[in-house]
Formats: sequence, C-alpha cells, structure tokens
Amino acid sequence: MLEDSQQSRTKLSELGEFGLIDLLTKNLQSKLPSTIKGIGDDAAVLEFKNKQILVTTDFLLEGVHFDLSYMPLKHLGYKAVMVNLSDVYAMNGTATQITVGIAVSNRFPVEALEELYEGIELAAKIYNIDVVGGDTSSSDKGLLISITAIGMAEKKDVVYRSGAKPNDLLVVTGDLGAAYMGLNILKREKEVFKANPNSQPDLDVYTYLIERQLKPEARKDIPPLFKTLGVKPTSMIDISDGLSSEIIHLCKSSKVGANLFEEKIPLDPSVISACEEFELDSTTIALSGGEDYELLFTIAQQDFDKIKANPHFTVIGHMTEENEGMHLITRANTKIPLIARGWNAMKEEEN
Amino acid sequence: MLEDSQQSRTKLSELGEFGLIDLLTKNLQSKLPSTIKGIGDDAAVLEFKNKQILVTTDFLLEGVHFDLSYMPLKHLGYKAVMVNLSDVYAMNGTATQITVGIAVSNRFPVEALEELYEGIELAAKIYNIDVVGGDTSSSDKGLLISITAIGMAEKKDVVYRSGAKPNDLLVVTGDLGAAYMGLNILKREKEVFKANPNSQPDLDVYTYLIERQLKPEARKDIPPLFKTLGVKPTSMIDISDGLSSEIIHLCKSSKVGANLFEEKIPLDPSVISACEEFELDSTTIALSGGEDYELLFTIAQQDFDKIKANPHFTVIGHMTEENEGMHLITRANTKIPLIARGWNAMKEEEN
Repeated sequence: MLEDSQQSRTKLSELGEFGLIDLLTKNLQSKLPSTIKGIGDDAAVLEFKNKQILVTTDFLLEGVHFDLSYMPLKHLGYKAVMVNLSDVYAMNGTATQITVGIAVSNRFPVEALEELYEGIELAAKIYNIDVVGGDTSSSDKGLLISITAIGMAEKKDVVYRSGAKPNDLLVVTGDLGAAYMGLNILKREKEVFKANPNSQPDLDVYTYLIERQLKPEARKDIPPLFKTLGVKPTSMIDISDGLSSEIIHLCKSSKVGANLFEEKIPLDPSVISACEEFELDSTTIALSGGEDYELLFTIAQQDFDKIKANPHFTVIGHMTEENEGMHLITRANTKIPLIARGWNAMKEEEN
Repeated sequence: MLEDSQQSRTKLSELGEFGLIDLLTKNLQSKLPSTIKGIGDDAAVLEFKNKQILVTTDFLLEGVHFDLSYMPLKHLGYKAVMVNLSDVYAMNGTATQITVGIAVSNRFPVEALEELYEGIELAAKIYNIDVVGGDTSSSDKGLLISITAIGMAEKKDVVYRSGAKPNDLLVVTGDLGAAYMGLNILKREKEVFKANPNSQPDLDVYTYLIERQLKPEARKDIPPLFKTLGVKPTSMIDISDGLSSEIIHLCKSSKVGANLFEEKIPLDPSVISACEEFELDSTTIALSGGEDYELLFTIAQQDFDKIKANPHFTVIGHMTEENEGMHLITRANTKIPLIARGWNAMKEEEN
C-alpha cells in the first residue's frame, strides 16, 4: 500500500531533511511550563525546580517490533509514544516531554510520515506532553523510530524496581494478554486477506483485543491514583515483555522471591474466548504475551485495605524470601518455576 | 570482516536481550552527583537543582552515516557520543548523561558490540558523563545507534541559535573541512584495497584528517572558556552539516543576514594539500563537508578584545540586516549567495 506511487504523494527528496522537520513539527507547540525551548535548536531546554528527572529510551523497528501491513502509521506513532511514557509511569512519575528520532527509506512518501506524526501529536495532546526535539534521517531500509521520554517526580515519590520486600503483595493494573491476542488476530486476517483479497473480515467481536495491540494506552492515571489513595508501591515496573519476565525483573532487582497465583491473573473474557479459538493457554499468553503496558507493582501488606476495592487493581500474588524462588501456583495447586519468555526477537530471527 | 564466523565469536542469540545489556553495561558505573539512578530500571533518575536541562537526540545508521569497512566499531561508539555532546556544548551547557539505543542484526557477534561499547565508555570517561540507560534490539539489517544526551546550564548561560544581531561578529572554533577530507582518503583506500588486498597504505601524512573523521572530539572546552573570558555568545550552533548550512541556520533563527569572508575560513595545511591532491576546492569543502563538530557562534563587537588573542577562535565574518541576505565574500572580493549543501542523504539515495 505504502509503495504505491500515487500522484498525490510527495517524495522525501523533494523536501530534504530540514523541510521535512519543518513540515512534521509545525503543529507541535510547546505547552508545558517546564519546556523552555522545544524543537529548533541544538538541544531542547527544560527546567524542573527541585524535582527528579526521569529519562527513558525505546526503539521501534519495522520488521522487528511492527508490521506495517496491519499497523496503520498513525497508530504506530501513538504506540511508540505509549511504550516510552509507560516507563515513566512505572517510576511513579509524570511524563512531560519526548524527543522523536525517525529514520525512513525513500519508499515512504512524505504523507506517510505525516500520518505517523499525527499519531505522535495525538498522543502528546492526550497525555499532555511536549515534543521537544528529535532527529530525522534516511535509512537504506524500512522505518525506525526511537523515542526518548522525559518525566519528573518528587524525590520521595520515585518507585524503583528494587524496593520489594518478602510478604509484600504483588499487584497488577488492568488485564493481561489482550495485546498479544490482538496481534494473533491481525496476523490471521493478513493470511486470510492474502488468500482472498475480497474477504470482508468481521472483526467487531475482537475490537478490544485489536485496540490493545494497535492503540495501547499507558497508565498515566495510576501515579495520581496512588497519591489519592495514599499508597506508595515498594517496587514497580511496566509490563512490556509479559508478566513472567517482569516479575523476574522485580524479584532480581529486589532480591526477593515471588508466588504468583494462576487463578488471580486478570483476563478479559475476550482474551479467554480468543485463546479457546486459537487453542492457546490463556495463562501462558498472560505470562509471556507482552505489550500490555499495564503496571506491575508491590505494596506492603498493611496497604491492602487502601487498594482492595479499586477496580483498576488485582492482587495476583506475594513476594517471598529470595531463596524460595519465583513460582507460579497453578489452579491445580502445583508449583511451577517462572521462566522469562518475553522478549526474544534475537532468537526468533534465527529460526 | 565482521561476518567471519570465527570460533571465539559469541552469537547474540546465546545471550538474549537482558544478557546482552548486562554484558555491555557492566562497566558503566554512574559517577556524577546528578545521576541518582542509571541503567537498570524503567527510566533513569536525574536531579539538577535550579539548572536548565538540555536534551538532544541523534541517529547513526549503517550505510547512511557510517561504513563499517573503514569505521572501526570502537571509533564509531566514540563518535556517536561526540555527535550528541556537541549539541549540548552548542547550547553553552555541560553534558552530563546519555542514553544509548542500539539495534543490530545477527550478523554481528557479541564481541563487535563490546567493541562499540568500549568506544562509548571511553567517551563517557573522557567527557565525564554517565551512561544512564538505553534500549537494545535486534534489527533485520545492519547496525543503528540512537543516542540521547542530557546536559545542564544555568538559565543565564544558555545560548540559542536565535540571538544574533546585525554587526555581531561571526566566529568559529578550530579548523574546518578535515573530517570530510579524512572520509575521502578512507574511501580511496577502500577502493585501493579492493583492487589489491596486499597493498600497504602509508597514511601517516593524513593522520590529522583521518582522526578528525574517525575520532572527532566535541568542544567540551569552549563553554568553560567563554566563562573564563567573560564572553557570552549571542547565538551558537555546532558544525555538523558544514559551515554554510550552519550559518544559514543562525541567520534564519536570528532573522539576520551574514557576510562570510573566504580568506578568513580556518583550514589546516593538511586539508589544503589533500584538496589539491583530490582536485577539490578547499572553500567548498569547508562550506559543505560537514562532521567537523566545531562551534560556530556570534558575539557582540565590544567582546572582540576578549577573544582576539585566543588560538581557538577565528573571526570569519559578521552579521548584517536580514534584507542584506547571506553571502560569501570571495578572495577576489565577489559576493556569492550562501547555499545549504550539507545534509542531503535523502537526495543522494536517489542517485
């Protein structure tokens, strides 16, 4: 689709780098008091009085992290921002600015990049962040996006991965596995479409799953909710690679073990039915599917009353002494060691 | 060279992402007081009391920005850091932290990435910055590096591109064109080597040029020198794309014109002799060669006495009213409009 040479398409080379940056960033007006100078100089200038600053970077690469045959560019731009903001919220901070690096091959018309930037702008608007800089480059193949997010927090509010203690409760926001099942559905539809380009898929029943894959939302609401509830997690991480891998991160950083209860893992009914349809085990999907961008955190037992009535939170286990290890307690009450099966694109590449 | 499958080489897939990050970052100990938490959480945590924060991002892509057949990986890592720090110094700031995003295809053994990181570490050590985070990913082709640099400055010290006034003096640090001539020499040697792999090139005479290409140094020394001299530039930019393109940036941001005097452009003698050898015009090379990473700035006329004796600085022209335009005054005293011929990788790709 993107490689069509329709007459209304503008070649990248007609604009050059500076023209392209001007075009893409013309709608990006800085709005936050902490943004002193955004795009247009050697560096952005920010100012935070007596706050700690949070910085995080993520790459998204065509062919590795996304497939443009089912990922519309506007959604891709939006998602690229979410992936990064999620890391800031996982520190219990407020995201404030991003820089955007984009490298593209000439196969993309300017209009494609404008679509990508529309998604970035939409995310910036909804999440109240400023786009303060970036780099635009040509690539000899495909599309790459690198986003750096900057955020802030009061020193006393920052939550690291390393503060969990034995007996702390393990809690997750939202539900898990939907983004991965959304991806499975999109992949299947792509195959169906290849076989029969006239097929009219009815994807209504999968709306939630597809949205979780194509337009995930980072949990901006959670840090202020903690404030309202008077809770400070002892450790926190965002779920980008799958629950299992993230629990292992928290345990290793905090030098504790964990028991995760299979029956407690929050699953949307549409995930359960899609797993049945695809003959997949829903627990495995929640453990290893990834891209949920929910927050996983631990709290002291005495804080349980503060969160127990809240529909955003599900207690899924508890931390233990380090030497007890990390386990999944199945519905049949068997204890299985947790293994990380999240990110393994490097291994997949070999197959 | 890199694609050899020697037995001592470790495949990326043997380590996985987390193992790779652990390996690459094990020597990166945070040393600055402003680095509260470096690598190992969702985001880095920094703290600057009452300072303005500078943020800048740059991409380096194999096949676009570098060619591994003559760019050793250690130098590439070093240069990738320099490119970013240079932007911080161009704001008259102090660089403090970087995040490093790397995407690589499986064609690279782990040892290659260790070399790349050695260069990054060396730069971090020499320039006194902390590596506080990043992202490692697989790519389906080639090597990509994305670096974000963070710096700081007192509010009163920050220099933007936009402050130049008519009659301000236009000044450049160091000398120009050497990096581009270094690239020409490396390209020629590559062709010679292809034709005759046994050739033993004698590159001693080109040492300065090749060093400027392979191991450029960002001008960390200049912001403190301004402080010592009691000078604050009215505008500043770093020379990454070539003098001509950067003068145009300063003029457009500051809404002024400029006269640049050809006879004043600082050239190392080795640039002049290499230009003769390659039958290239040395002025053109200084104007459009790029990758010099020197600083270009303007100062008020009354500050001239403060800088005139300093060997780091050369006054190369002056700013004018905007409607007078941007011109090169040649040795023959002709006035030629300045044109930007810096970055044009997108155009080159089409040829």
